[in-house]
Amino acid sequence: MDAKTAKESLTVLTDLVLPGDTNYLDNLFGGELLARMDRACSIAARRHSARIVVTASVNHVAFNKSVPVGSVVTLEAKVSRAFTSSMEIYVDVWIEDRQSGLKTKVNEGIYTFVAVDETGKPVQIPQIIPETALEKERFEGALRRKQLSLILAGKLKPNDATELKALFKS
Amino acid sequence: MDAKTAKESLTVLTDLVLPGDTNYLDNLFGGELLARMDRACSIAARRHSARIVVTASVNHVAFNKSVPVGSVVTLEAKVSRAFTSSMEIYVDVWIEDRQSGLKTKVNEGIYTFVAVDETGKPVQIPQIIPETALEKERFEGALRRKQLSLILAGKLKPNDATELKALFKS
Amino acid sequence: MDAKTAKESLTVLTDLVLPGDTNYLDNLFGGELLARMDRACSIAARRHSARIVVTASVNHVAFNKSVPVGSVVTLEAKVSRAFTSSMEIYVDVWIEDRQSGLKTKVNEGIYTFVAVDETGKPVQIPQIIPETALEKERFEGALRRKQLSLILAGKLKPNDATELKALFKS
Amino acid sequence: MDAKTAKESLTVLTDLVLPGDTNYLDNLFGGELLARMDRACSIAARRHSARIVVTASVNHVAFNKSVPVGSVVTLEAKVSRAFTSSMEIYVDVWIEDRQSGLKTKVNEGIYTFVAVDETGKPVQIPQIIPETALEKERFEGALRRKQLSLILAGKLKPNDATELKALFKS
Amino acid sequence: MDAKTAKESLTVLTDLVLPGDTNYLDNLFGGELLARMDRACSIAARRHSARIVVTASVNHVAFNKSVPVGSVVTLEAKVSRAFTSSMEIYVDVWIEDRQSGLKTKVNEGIYTFVAVDETGKPVQIPQIIPETALEKERFEGALRRKQLSLILAGKLKPNDATELKALFKS
Amino acid sequence: MDAKTAKESLTVLTDLVLPGDTNYLDNLFGGELLARMDRACSIAARRHSARIVVTASVNHVAFNKSVPVGSVVTLEAKVSRAFTSSMEIYVDVWIEDRQSGLKTKVNEGIYTFVAVDETGKPVQIPQIIPETALEKERFEGALRRKQLSLILAGKLKPNDATELKALFKS
Repeated sequence: MDAKTAKESLTVLTDLVLPGDTNYLDNLFGGELLARMDRACSIAARRHSARIVVTASVNHVAFNKSVPVGSVVTLEAKVSRAFTSSMEIYVDVWIEDRQSGLKTKVNEGIYTFVAVDETGKPVQIPQIIPETALEKERFEGALRRKQLSLILAGKLKPNDATELKALFKS
Repeated sequence: MDAKTAKESLTVLTDLVLPGDTNYLDNLFGGELLARMDRACSIAARRHSARIVVTASVNHVAFNKSVPVGSVVTLEAKVSRAFTSSMEIYVDVWIEDRQSGLKTKVNEGIYTFVAVDETGKPVQIPQIIPETALEKERFEGALRRKQLSLILAGKLKPNDATELKALFKS
Repeated sequence: MDAKTAKESLTVLTDLVLPGDTNYLDNLFGGELLARMDRACSIAARRHSARIVVTASVNHVAFNKSVPVGSVVTLEAKVSRAFTSSMEIYVDVWIEDRQSGLKTKVNEGIYTFVAVDETGKPVQIPQIIPETALEKERFEGALRRKQLSLILAGKLKPNDATELKALFKS
Repeated sequence: MDAKTAKESLTVLTDLVLPGDTNYLDNLFGGELLARMDRACSIAARRHSARIVVTASVNHVAFNKSVPVGSVVTLEAKVSRAFTSSMEIYVDVWIEDRQSGLKTKVNEGIYTFVAVDETGKPVQIPQIIPETALEKERFEGALRRKQLSLILAGKLKPNDATELKALFKS
Repeated sequence: MDAKTAKESLTVLTDLVLPGDTNYLDNLFGGELLARMDRACSIAARRHSARIVVTASVNHVAFNKSVPVGSVVTLEAKVSRAFTSSMEIYVDVWIEDRQSGLKTKVNEGIYTFVAVDETGKPVQIPQIIPETALEKERFEGALRRKQLSLILAGKLKPNDATELKALFKS
Repeated sequence: MDAKTAKESLTVLTDLVLPGDTNYLDNLFGGELLARMDRACSIAARRHSARIVVTASVNHVAFNKSVPVGSVVTLEAKVSRAFTSSMEIYVDVWIEDRQSGLKTKVNEGIYTFVAVDETGKPVQIPQIIPETALEKERFEGALRRKQLSLILAGKLKPNDATELKALFKS
């Protein structure tokens, strides 16, 4: 099974924020943004694995800036690292100024998806070849985040999380 | 006002077809696809003009293949030609095979948007510089399509549609 | 197969414009209106053909006036002409003043649907008998519009479009 | 203030049942049908009163037959009787057989709306002139139903409900 | 088949009113509230009967106060009485003040559901044991309301409605 | 400002999974569940703080079991710990067997919300008093999770995360 580059999984979802997508402060509702991020990440995971994929976990999503109604929102999702049958996907969210066209990053999320066969059994997937500096940085961090996620789920003891433990050694 | 290339307006909207988007044959509902095309085209028009834009007309949309539930659908919208304050936008719609990754074109649409100021008055916009062969072909055809549209709307007499008339001379 | 009158296919869809249907200017979103038009036309096509019908193309939709939130919108769809297995449907869109009850036409669209059997194969359908002056005018124009549509789709050469060509002879 | 005929308020809402409108038995979801009935009734009430209207109560809705996905559903709403500022509206719901075109009544509902001014204060409205036998029957019954509704809401004592009481005298 | 207490069927649905749920006065749309009530009642009916349930009728819903966008709305549904295979469900609707936390009742509805087997045939269900004063009051009234509903549906003659008739005896 | 118990913020959102909420495997779509979790958490945060609240981050959501169409899904959200102006909220998700009534936990999520005033400026909020064993365990862990979140966001150096570091000392 040949490894594939991260950018082969790149998924772009550009869409408007309409009034039906907002909270009562007239900004994009958090839940609606989480749903769009999930859809973009699932497509990136599917493009990398060529398999049916299911959401395993949302590892972290930071909401840095609110997104007003009428905005053009662009989500860019890309697989950052593949494990045996699971993948970590990063999704970056941008809005753009109508007049200048300048883009501002408003949000970033990290999701994990698992590739399965028709019966729902996890299957092996290709590895990721990171190319850009950012892809490499995210690839490196993915193992630590995976250990964190296992600790949070009670499936790994902190002292067995070797990658993570190294972070805290003085 | 400097002209801009067509590709500066390129807008990509990749999304899933979920059961809530289908007709009762379990294919993407035509009306839902028309709505996604309208959103993608309006973003392309806004990116080109840096203005508020409103839909003026749908000139032609051909539904060549049905799109089954579970598909990944990619819409690519790009301004093909700008007139004084109106723009023609082409949107191409693709689905991709999950296993091979091969893309198939299922649908193509042509929309017209008008750029307006805050009071709703049409405003002047930059012209388009087509670069690729396809961009040039669509740029050339846009004037004929505009005349057609005016004839259909009863605002132009066939014999005054010089561009179009030339098509039919033997 | 007996021909049927146009009015037998008349389909009326009256509904409100709620905030969840609007663009960020608080008017009915173009994409939502296109979706409603598609639903009304598909019902008219089904009533005429008594068959499963699928959208083949949107031939022309003109957005003349914006439709503010809170409006009562009435769509009236009617088959204008039937060919072997395809039908042209006209849909007129009206809003009404709450106090005077006066109706204003805001929009008009022309769609083409194809009647198919359970396997998706096109099937023969009844012809249309136009009765009113408007029905007759639309019936007459349908053949020209069909030729236009085929030319736009690259399936007919302009010089073979006899009906259309006649328009441009001086 | 001149009385108006019942049929002047007639509102027709024809629409499809798409998969996104169904319960998990693949029939139109009861809640979605109640929402469509409310929209149709509110338009009929607005057409009669030429005023802003708000839902006051749902008096009775009987679900007699389930409505399968893919159905064409027609709602016909009409004001049956007007009181000082409130109106009773009847809405009948039909589905039609695709091949024979025969209509079957699946559901019937009775709603009450109140006409208000811009500040939300109830305002006087025109009376209803029933014309057909069915309109007359519904007009006659409306007073009894109003008394029932007031009793259920604890705003009228049974023995003061003269119209209703007459029903039970032997 | 053992009887069950009313509170075993209690179903709580707390949710926000987002702009996509409103009418054009920026209040919760009546139809959307009816749909939420139907969902809450269907869950209460399912919890009581442990069966598939379908909406039989809406007996009465009173809209006493409007619910502004941004509100937290709580629906509490509970089976008030069970008959052979049908159940009456009461649903109370509350909004709460953000600062004081005080709850205000805005709406109340009475629905009837029927329990069915996989083939859609009505099946027998457990009886209800009312415990609180309110549960007992609603239990008592349920038979009268059932007779009313049958009269409205033309399935019972007023003089055979013994429970109801007793209300009007002087 | 008096501290409040965790259970005062308890928010229960019980609802159905309808076909319009599913992915193409006929299970509840991950994005739709994330949106419901966000709505339940925002209400819990609002109930605790009596303030306007905005989503700051999703810290972790694990999808352990898929949720089939037709399920009754119950979300229970409760504030686990309050900091100066931010709160951690835990949301547990359950489905129940229709026949036995037995509940199964399918999913768990941790969200962070910030309380703000009308101008969007963070404001101080009451502290949390945990009462049950589970509330105490979640309260204890909240500080470690906050440090993790700050590290992931690049706002805290691992060696300054004293609570977290203690986990890894051997």
